[in-house]
Amino acid sequence: MDNINEKLGHYCGVVGIYSEDKINIPESLFYPLFSLQHRGQECCGISYRRHGHIITYKDVGMVSQVLTHYLQEDHPSHIGIGHVRYSTQGSNKLENAQPVMAACNKGEISIAHNGNISNSNSLRAELLKQGSIIQSTSDTEIILHLMSLNQSENFEDVLIQTLKKLEGAFSMVLIHNQTLYAIRDPHGFRPLVMGKKGGMTVFASETCALDILQAEFVREIKAGEIVAINEEGERSIQYHDNPTLHQCIFELIYFARPDSEIFNHSVHLTRKKMGQYLAMEDRVETDIVAPVPDSGNSAALGFAEATERSLEMGLTRNHYTGRTFIQPRKSQREFGVRIKLHPVKAVTSGRSISLIDDSLVRGTTSKIIVKLMRESGAKEIHLRLSAPEIKYPCYYGIDIPTREELISNHLTPDEIAREIGADSVHFISIESLRKCVDNPDNFCFACFNGDYPVKVKEEDLPNGEKT
Amino acid sequence: MDNINEKLGHYCGVVGIYSEDKINIPESLFYPLFSLQHRGQECCGISYRRHGHIITYKDVGMVSQVLTHYLQEDHPSHIGIGHVRYSTQGSNKLENAQPVMAACNKGEISIAHNGNISNSNSLRAELLKQGSIIQSTSDTEIILHLMSLNQSENFEDVLIQTLKKLEGAFSMVLIHNQTLYAIRDPHGFRPLVMGKKGGMTVFASETCALDILQAEFVREIKAGEIVAINEEGERSIQYHDNPTLHQCIFELIYFARPDSEIFNHSVHLTRKKMGQYLAMEDRVETDIVAPVPDSGNSAALGFAEATERSLEMGLTRNHYTGRTFIQPRKSQREFGVRIKLHPVKAVTSGRSISLIDDSLVRGTTSKIIVKLMRESGAKEIHLRLSAPEIKYPCYYGIDIPTREELISNHLTPDEIAREIGADSVHFISIESLRKCVDNPDNFCFACFNGDYPVKVKEEDLPNGEKT
Amino acid sequence: MDNINEKLGHYCGVVGIYSEDKINIPESLFYPLFSLQHRGQECCGISYRRHGHIITYKDVGMVSQVLTHYLQEDHPSHIGIGHVRYSTQGSNKLENAQPVMAACNKGEISIAHNGNISNSNSLRAELLKQGSIIQSTSDTEIILHLMSLNQSENFEDVLIQTLKKLEGAFSMVLIHNQTLYAIRDPHGFRPLVMGKKGGMTVFASETCALDILQAEFVREIKAGEIVAINEEGERSIQYHDNPTLHQCIFELIYFARPDSEIFNHSVHLTRKKMGQYLAMEDRVETDIVAPVPDSGNSAALGFAEATERSLEMGLTRNHYTGRTFIQPRKSQREFGVRIKLHPVKAVTSGRSISLIDDSLVRGTTSKIIVKLMRESGAKEIHLRLSAPEIKYPCYYGIDIPTREELISNHLTPDEIAREIGADSVHFISIESLRKCVDNPDNFCFACFNGDYPVKVKEEDLPNGEKT
Amino acid sequence: MDNINEKLGHYCGVVGIYSEDKINIPESLFYPLFSLQHRGQECCGISYRRHGHIITYKDVGMVSQVLTHYLQEDHPSHIGIGHVRYSTQGSNKLENAQPVMAACNKGEISIAHNGNISNSNSLRAELLKQGSIIQSTSDTEIILHLMSLNQSENFEDVLIQTLKKLEGAFSMVLIHNQTLYAIRDPHGFRPLVMGKKGGMTVFASETCALDILQAEFVREIKAGEIVAINEEGERSIQYHDNPTLHQCIFELIYFARPDSEIFNHSVHLTRKKMGQYLAMEDRVETDIVAPVPDSGNSAALGFAEATERSLEMGLTRNHYTGRTFIQPRKSQREFGVRIKLHPVKAVTSGRSISLIDDSLVRGTTSKIIVKLMRESGAKEIHLRLSAPEIKYPCYYGIDIPTREELISNHLTPDEIAREIGADSVHFISIESLRKCVDNPDNFCFACFNGDYPVKVKEEDLPNGEKT
Repeated sequence: MDNINEKLGHYCGVVGIYSEDKINIPESLFYPLFSLQHRGQECCGISYRRHGHIITYKDVGMVSQVLTHYLQEDHPSHIGIGHVRYSTQGSNKLENAQPVMAACNKGEISIAHNGNISNSNSLRAELLKQGSIIQSTSDTEIILHLMSLNQSENFEDVLIQTLKKLEGAFSMVLIHNQTLYAIRDPHGFRPLVMGKKGGMTVFASETCALDILQAEFVREIKAGEIVAINEEGERSIQYHDNPTLHQCIFELIYFARPDSEIFNHSVHLTRKKMGQYLAMEDRVETDIVAPVPDSGNSAALGFAEATERSLEMGLTRNHYTGRTFIQPRKSQREFGVRIKLHPVKAVTSGRSISLIDDSLVRGTTSKIIVKLMRESGAKEIHLRLSAPEIKYPCYYGIDIPTREELISNHLTPDEIAREIGADSVHFISIESLRKCVDNPDNFCFACFNGDYPVKVKEEDLPNGEKT
Repeated sequence: MDNINEKLGHYCGVVGIYSEDKINIPESLFYPLFSLQHRGQECCGISYRRHGHIITYKDVGMVSQVLTHYLQEDHPSHIGIGHVRYSTQGSNKLENAQPVMAACNKGEISIAHNGNISNSNSLRAELLKQGSIIQSTSDTEIILHLMSLNQSENFEDVLIQTLKKLEGAFSMVLIHNQTLYAIRDPHGFRPLVMGKKGGMTVFASETCALDILQAEFVREIKAGEIVAINEEGERSIQYHDNPTLHQCIFELIYFARPDSEIFNHSVHLTRKKMGQYLAMEDRVETDIVAPVPDSGNSAALGFAEATERSLEMGLTRNHYTGRTFIQPRKSQREFGVRIKLHPVKAVTSGRSISLIDDSLVRGTTSKIIVKLMRESGAKEIHLRLSAPEIKYPCYYGIDIPTREELISNHLTPDEIAREIGADSVHFISIESLRKCVDNPDNFCFACFNGDYPVKVKEEDLPNGEKT
Repeated sequence: MDNINEKLGHYCGVVGIYSEDKINIPESLFYPLFSLQHRGQECCGISYRRHGHIITYKDVGMVSQVLTHYLQEDHPSHIGIGHVRYSTQGSNKLENAQPVMAACNKGEISIAHNGNISNSNSLRAELLKQGSIIQSTSDTEIILHLMSLNQSENFEDVLIQTLKKLEGAFSMVLIHNQTLYAIRDPHGFRPLVMGKKGGMTVFASETCALDILQAEFVREIKAGEIVAINEEGERSIQYHDNPTLHQCIFELIYFARPDSEIFNHSVHLTRKKMGQYLAMEDRVETDIVAPVPDSGNSAALGFAEATERSLEMGLTRNHYTGRTFIQPRKSQREFGVRIKLHPVKAVTSGRSISLIDDSLVRGTTSKIIVKLMRESGAKEIHLRLSAPEIKYPCYYGIDIPTREELISNHLTPDEIAREIGADSVHFISIESLRKCVDNPDNFCFACFNGDYPVKVKEEDLPNGEKT
Repeated sequence: MDNINEKLGHYCGVVGIYSEDKINIPESLFYPLFSLQHRGQECCGISYRRHGHIITYKDVGMVSQVLTHYLQEDHPSHIGIGHVRYSTQGSNKLENAQPVMAACNKGEISIAHNGNISNSNSLRAELLKQGSIIQSTSDTEIILHLMSLNQSENFEDVLIQTLKKLEGAFSMVLIHNQTLYAIRDPHGFRPLVMGKKGGMTVFASETCALDILQAEFVREIKAGEIVAINEEGERSIQYHDNPTLHQCIFELIYFARPDSEIFNHSVHLTRKKMGQYLAMEDRVETDIVAPVPDSGNSAALGFAEATERSLEMGLTRNHYTGRTFIQPRKSQREFGVRIKLHPVKAVTSGRSISLIDDSLVRGTTSKIIVKLMRESGAKEIHLRLSAPEIKYPCYYGIDIPTREELISNHLTPDEIAREIGADSVHFISIESLRKCVDNPDNFCFACFNGDYPVKVKEEDLPNGEKT
């Protein structure tokens, strides 16, 4: 998302559209995908059905690069899905682009998926044994193989039996023949919402993708639910006997856009609440409260309100830095931060500051930010984080660095403060964070407390995690 | 600058660097130009001296596109200047790119200039009469012609005599032989600051360009001052007998970056003060105060503080919209705004809102913003502007639309409110605005009150302005 | 290949390299792929083995665009394969790019393939029935599935049993573990040659790809032969009991580069011979002999020698026309030809001309060429083709238009002459063409005479061909 | 033109169009400029008149890149000029792009120019003294200054008096108000032809630019002639009392396209004749005659005819090498040639060869070609050049390297043969070359014999030439 602020990485955003009337589906997918760009900037793509076939187009690049030509073309269709994908390493990024489409004995299927199948290693091993060839490292391809090998006559039986084999996190949209399916795993790790506008039904990772189409939010897809929609109408299938919500709290802390509502929470207001609870735990008096823009903005508003201190623009952000910017040769990371974040000396000089950010991962960027603030005359810098200490890997779709790289895995807040040069560092407690959401038991806090709702077998652990 | 928010356009940013030791001047110019990108996105360029000649490179595009290759190359030099230029119409934008370099009987000269020579039509006519050929519509070329035609032996005499012929606004940097000159017009319309870092002296339009180089701010170039710097050291020449400051108030209202200090004012704090005075004039109670991001942020902070109302993120801004984005076919402007600004429903729904923006030019974008806020459930929308009503053209470097297009030229605030659908519209008064700055008499408010510090002869008026 | 001259399309070129010492395999693949660019301009790619894994990189574009970055990088390796692919229709050209790599129960395998599996429909249907998912329309993916499903322990048994299931044309290179395989089908439809340079062995579609590496031509891969090479040395396996050569005569007529030697024939000299035999069948006296450049050059040399008439540059070709050239709005095809081919009036004016081209497919371009020649004053135009009349589809790797589009399928040479405006049209006879090669029985002439060496079952016919 | 074959460089091609009816002038300029691309690949541009003003658009790049957008746009106009420019060194190539347009006291003028003003240093010095500023190193700017400073009332007097001050070579087209002027210097060094199609008059460097528009060749512009055309019709003005033709023989040897007719000679047939005369001077018997394609093609045809030896394709040329091709790291030049030129072993092996090329400049490429031919088995290589030994600089528009770099300046043909590895090298004699053209006294052979038709004063010599 934001490699300068070295935030946690995410695995994607999805959109699905079904329209009673034929509409220009690629154009209709463009706008919501554009709205979900923050969920993945590496590659993007769409699938839509025309003349009895699914057409898929995907490439490396942003939505405004890869899909813009669709704004000039007309492709009338009833049904389509789209995907934006988060940046990963490797030379040929395209092989993991989505949607993934294949022909199989069930016909043509295309899937766009957000999440992480936590038993994919086992499934993959099983598939290879049975003779499948696997052309990518994407979980989505695995799902297609499982469907194809399933021998039920009825596609919905195939779908349900396949979903039951999957563990972990998956919010997905799927085209099969004339039907669009929207599916959420039995824990509801990742968000998936439904909206309507006239005869058009839209599924998307966040409500901001509905807003851009002026579609009205209807409801969230439920954990363990399949919503199927075609010319015969819309049906809901509960495919899991015992769904229990474990929604990713990090979506609310950082991933989702502040104007979205997901998990039936306003993202902005929830973050503000985090700022308020964070403030209540704080015992250091400071002159001003300043966010690290833009990720700390909402929490800082709450923090300032709760402390009745002045909110100030201690840092501004330069929005002309783009992906095409070639890094200078010397001291790259530091210059990268300098060129993006600028202290407002008139505000920081001689002041003690509560600096509000959402989370601390490796600590390297925070160290530079603190240095910048010191240069601009800040007297005291007290870093306050609206996420607790990140200590554990995520198996449900967040790209968390290895434990060695996680600063909270080996340093206490006091040690971190010394390491990054701040006067103090405080993380919101898990207890306070739980108070920021309705029904905290419906959320997953595993990256903070190691309490994994879905156990992962050793053979399914990523390389390096194995004991 | 921001064609979605349809702000006023500006004519440029400049940088000049002199270093006692040879340094990689193009790289050293890159960073401050990048920091001044908000002052001009159409084209950019640099001139630097090597092997006894001035080398100039400029092209259409952003700093990160046009000049990035210089980050990989080494061009040791003592002296260089750079320029970013604001977007204008026309097919061949390159002809007006700066710096403008020419060989003449004084040697090679290169100039980068921010401002507007208000008697350029007369000067141009005179030059044509004398047999000069004019290859661009840029004022800079005129200055070069005047220098070349001047017959004084001494270059500084030439420079001073030339400057005395120029009326209007000019903050410029100039290379002649081994000397760098930084020059400000006798009214000081546009900012120009000086900073130092070791043996390196930096001139720039704003202090943010010094900060990125970690150069320390030394002082502003004075109105009517020439600072000359070469291996013999630095000299200040006051070339005008009676300089009187008329600094552009719009630099503080909108153009400059909030983390800059120009005209010896913190941009951010001055804007905050505008918000405070704006609040004092306001008689409408509202639930929340929300800025139009990012241009309304600072004023909104001040407004909220003064009114003791809650500051809220009523709108968020999508920063993935770039210049490469091709507009959709239908309802382009509205979609352009929708894709960039997003109401936060959880905040706006059912609320009365003081919506803070910096200025109102044509009113078209504000109309769409108000519509978006209504759709998101806002109960009342009271638009508050930290600039007074813009009614008059600027002859000193701001690209103000024709009087017909200026909404305040033909509508009262109440009429504007009806036109754009707001519940009320209020502009800060000129009186309050004057209180936001030290020594208000040192500022130019001509676009609000028509009180022009430098009269413009009829033959020098732009086409369409002539009576 | 040449859509202006509307030639027949081809399906690819392949390269494989094994080196005893580690060398920069991607760079070593670049040059021979560049030499094979005429065999496919749509997309290209390479696979090479590093750190125990196969790395694959492919994209839409020419070799000089897609792979140039490898000239700047170092990837030491023993083994690699590469592919260039011919231009086809469809929005997402990338899905059929090669090499195709997959993980399966045999390990990682990557294949680059030139040809056409004529029973691929049947094989595909069988695979789908067994539960395979098929992600492209490429034959190569089918081969990978067949290998993966084969249950032999030994990889070479797997390979041989898989190859025995394939019908039609395939010259391929394949990486499995540390071994490079070069394989040719039992009919030897497509060329595949082997060369050596020191410890490096190179396989390629044509000898021109060996020349650029200064590798010495060793021999052709035999029909029905597998050459396996790894650190234990090189082995030849004859996997088919009864291979019988049916080499594609069109490779010699048009596809291969004139400086290549394939099927143990010099391409240029064979084309010259075609010109000589074509001349012997000709009864029209003309003033000059002129080729349509460059495809008619070699045959025209032979034709002129045999007739003892003057060879002349009646047409020149503009080589600045590239792929990026956007077609003008009006009369596109005609302008496309005009901009590429230019009559030399001084030569054509008032002359009767034997115009030599290699083949006639749809006739549309020839019609424009004849018009151009008339405009330039040619008195008589006698079109002579070094290929017989193309009347039948090819199932072995040439992209021949549908029968309806083939001009020779529904018009006689005299009718064609009238249609395109020529004074006469003559095609070389199949009898004469057979005399141009050693052992004509070792060649396939099916597109001319419908005599298919490998029968194709009805279910394997392409859409539209089915009766 | 052809940096692999390291040919001499040229300074441009021009086009001018006047149409009685309004037509889409930019599109009409596109095609002839595209046809003149061989005369300059660095930058290109056009000027056309609309709404009372001249609009100019130019950029670095090929015609198909820079001007293609004009094929999609409509700009009705009566009058326009265009230019292609040859590649030179330096970072900012754009400053010398043409047409050059300026406003002056005569109104707006735009000029596109092919040639070299041999007294430009003197003129430039004079202009600087008078106070002109000079923004480029192009001669064209000088011409504009001279016109502007001329005080005659009548523009044609201005034009004539200006032209009389210019020495050297200039074929130019010029727009002033509604009139198009086509002008050729009194020696007629560079070609300039006129064609007509209906009410459209076209001026261009070569007839190939007329052909693409299907305009009929009318005549050459005469030495010392101005042709003026506007709505009042066409007039010819002979502005020089004593014009004497000294047409550049190198245009016929190498620069012009073989299908063009310039200087009232067919380029192809004249080259063929050069081959014939070259053959007559030759005393070495060889097996075959082979051109270096494509520049040696025409001469080789003539050589083969005259000697009654077999013409053969000893070398083929790869046309996929473009400008975007990044050179490999090692042995760049050699690889550059290898990738472009390919011996046809079946033809060269064991043969003695007369290898025909147009000229020898530095000899470096020929050395590599000879090496390639040896590798391909050639028994003897006798290089034959259709240009005499190049020993002297050109002051009239050809970019000849310094004397030190010219191989013929310090080596005899026999020494050159040893240097490049050929069995013999022979240049056509000046005497024979003179026989290839009508009225040889009307041509300039200065680069071969140092006999300059226009003397150049020492102060006007290029740097490095001065004694």
